[in-house]
Amino acid sequence: MQKFYQAEIMSRQVALGIDIGGTDTKYGFVEKSGEILSKGKFSTNTNDDIIFFIADLKKEIKKALAALPEQIELIGIGIGAPNGNFYRGTIEQATNLAWKGIVPLSRLVEESLNAKTYVTNDANAAAMGEMLFGSAKGMRNFVVITMGTGLGSGIVVNGEIVYGHSGFAGELGHQTVNINGRSCACGKKGCLETYVSATGIKRTVYKLLADSREESVLRNIGFNDLSAEMITGEALRGDKIATEAFEYTGRILGIKLADTVYHLAPEAIFLAGGLAKAGSILFDQVIFQLEKNLMTLFKDSVKVLPSGLEDQDSSILGAASLILK
Amino acid sequence: MQKFYQAEIMSRQVALGIDIGGTDTKYGFVEKSGEILSKGKFSTNTNDDIIFFIADLKKEIKKALAALPEQIELIGIGIGAPNGNFYRGTIEQATNLAWKGIVPLSRLVEESLNAKTYVTNDANAAAMGEMLFGSAKGMRNFVVITMGTGLGSGIVVNGEIVYGHSGFAGELGHQTVNINGRSCACGKKGCLETYVSATGIKRTVYKLLADSREESVLRNIGFNDLSAEMITGEALRGDKIATEAFEYTGRILGIKLADTVYHLAPEAIFLAGGLAKAGSILFDQVIFQLEKNLMTLFKDSVKVLPSGLEDQDSSILGAASLILK
Repeated sequence: MQKFYQAEIMSRQVALGIDIGGTDTKYGFVEKSGEILSKGKFSTNTNDDIIFFIADLKKEIKKALAALPEQIELIGIGIGAPNGNFYRGTIEQATNLAWKGIVPLSRLVEESLNAKTYVTNDANAAAMGEMLFGSAKGMRNFVVITMGTGLGSGIVVNGEIVYGHSGFAGELGHQTVNINGRSCACGKKGCLETYVSATGIKRTVYKLLADSREESVLRNIGFNDLSAEMITGEALRGDKIATEAFEYTGRILGIKLADTVYHLAPEAIFLAGGLAKAGSILFDQVIFQLEKNLMTLFKDSVKVLPSGLEDQDSSILGAASLILK
Repeated sequence: MQKFYQAEIMSRQVALGIDIGGTDTKYGFVEKSGEILSKGKFSTNTNDDIIFFIADLKKEIKKALAALPEQIELIGIGIGAPNGNFYRGTIEQATNLAWKGIVPLSRLVEESLNAKTYVTNDANAAAMGEMLFGSAKGMRNFVVITMGTGLGSGIVVNGEIVYGHSGFAGELGHQTVNINGRSCACGKKGCLETYVSATGIKRTVYKLLADSREESVLRNIGFNDLSAEMITGEALRGDKIATEAFEYTGRILGIKLADTVYHLAPEAIFLAGGLAKAGSILFDQVIFQLEKNLMTLFKDSVKVLPSGLEDQDSSILGAASLILK
């Protein structure tokens, strides 16, 4: 009886959420309530053999488990990763990771850490996190757009992530904006993410600096030193180039989101990731252009909202949601 | 016992499928197997009071029921109609019907014919018909594009029609192709259906006739006399204007379908309706452009197929599927 009582109070059921990014891998132990008991990060191993990454991961997780102040029961592992495939538990042809081809990630992690493991792409994980712990609680039809280096998306229909037939549904960043437009990392031209992302708005600033004679602080900054935060800062200070860059970005996103609404008629579209931090200088234009491009039947039917999750933890919570949902 | 036996062999369970179009309303009594026991059509009443339509419908259906050679049990009524809303059982703001505003169709039909009634839009009905009785049997993720006067679409995810939050999901015809493009019946400009539909290809022919000096039989035909069938016929005979019109149409559809694949990663996209009858002169270009605009991860993952249903009956079967599924 004594023992049972101890187990009751001491062993907490948690999921391990892992977010594999091109630079860092973040992880955290997450309770059903969304409380993160412990979190950490380490450099994503850039050796092209995944086995080195798995070894690093095992070492990190063992260390983190040992450091936990209380006993936990690990009920499973959820992983968000670029080109993560939920059906097959794989990462496939991810251009910003060192491992080429098809990586059987869930099998390798299960063997290494001895817990049921699910994989999905990072934006799908963000959408699940939003549904369980963020501002999409109770919503059954919504879309999450994550704008960082690229543009990712997670689509929820009838309360479930849309994976599609192949498992790769929700790659809105590769929709065509301009068939002869900017070169994309995917090999195509004019993809949405070449315009609407932290990188996309940098490209837009450089285009505007080239086209106009307008003075701007941004003329003093090299492309590689320029960041979306700087552009946001200058736009807030009234810099014309920065302001125009946000208008251009918001206009393209608004027009393409109307296409998304014609597909899915979602209750809300969440804008998340670095670029979304710009707030109203981005959102106002997105909403204006979205509404402008919706026919009467759809007008004022879709909310455009910021993510309800702390940026820092959303990827961990999202990945853990694969287990906790 | 005698009576029970008779009921067993004589009373067949059937659904009534109704397709309300701008000109005609078609209906049929459909068995679970997809067999149509009887069908008919009548002119859609153009009085702006729906009550006249309901009266016509009741008269027609009573007559058809009386003419059936055997006893049936009517298990329900499914209706496909422009801007039909499944959630509310309404037709809302349909531009090509006489009834304005919001029409409580399912309630009126239930009261009149005394059977459970569901309403959806005509393209959603086509998608359900394809899933139950056509070439999408066994598929859980696919899209149906219907190309007639306009362009309609029905989206299936995880075996269910996507209605979205408002019930109006799947209006792909109003995606933006060109923000400054052709005027659309919806009030916007440059909608997909102004290019890709029976009407759209007529507009393209006239644009090409205006731009070029190429001789063509089509120069002898007035816009109102021109049909998609004629353009198909001339393209098959090698007419350059007609051929170029199909290339243009297929190119735009292929590019936009790539965007749809990035949303949904469907197993197949079905092209249905009048314009799809053109066959390979349309399909080849659509498939070429779709593949060209898909990134590596998505290439060769989506089939583009003709509908597996007879055009004549697909709308009736689709509407009946609301009950039979």
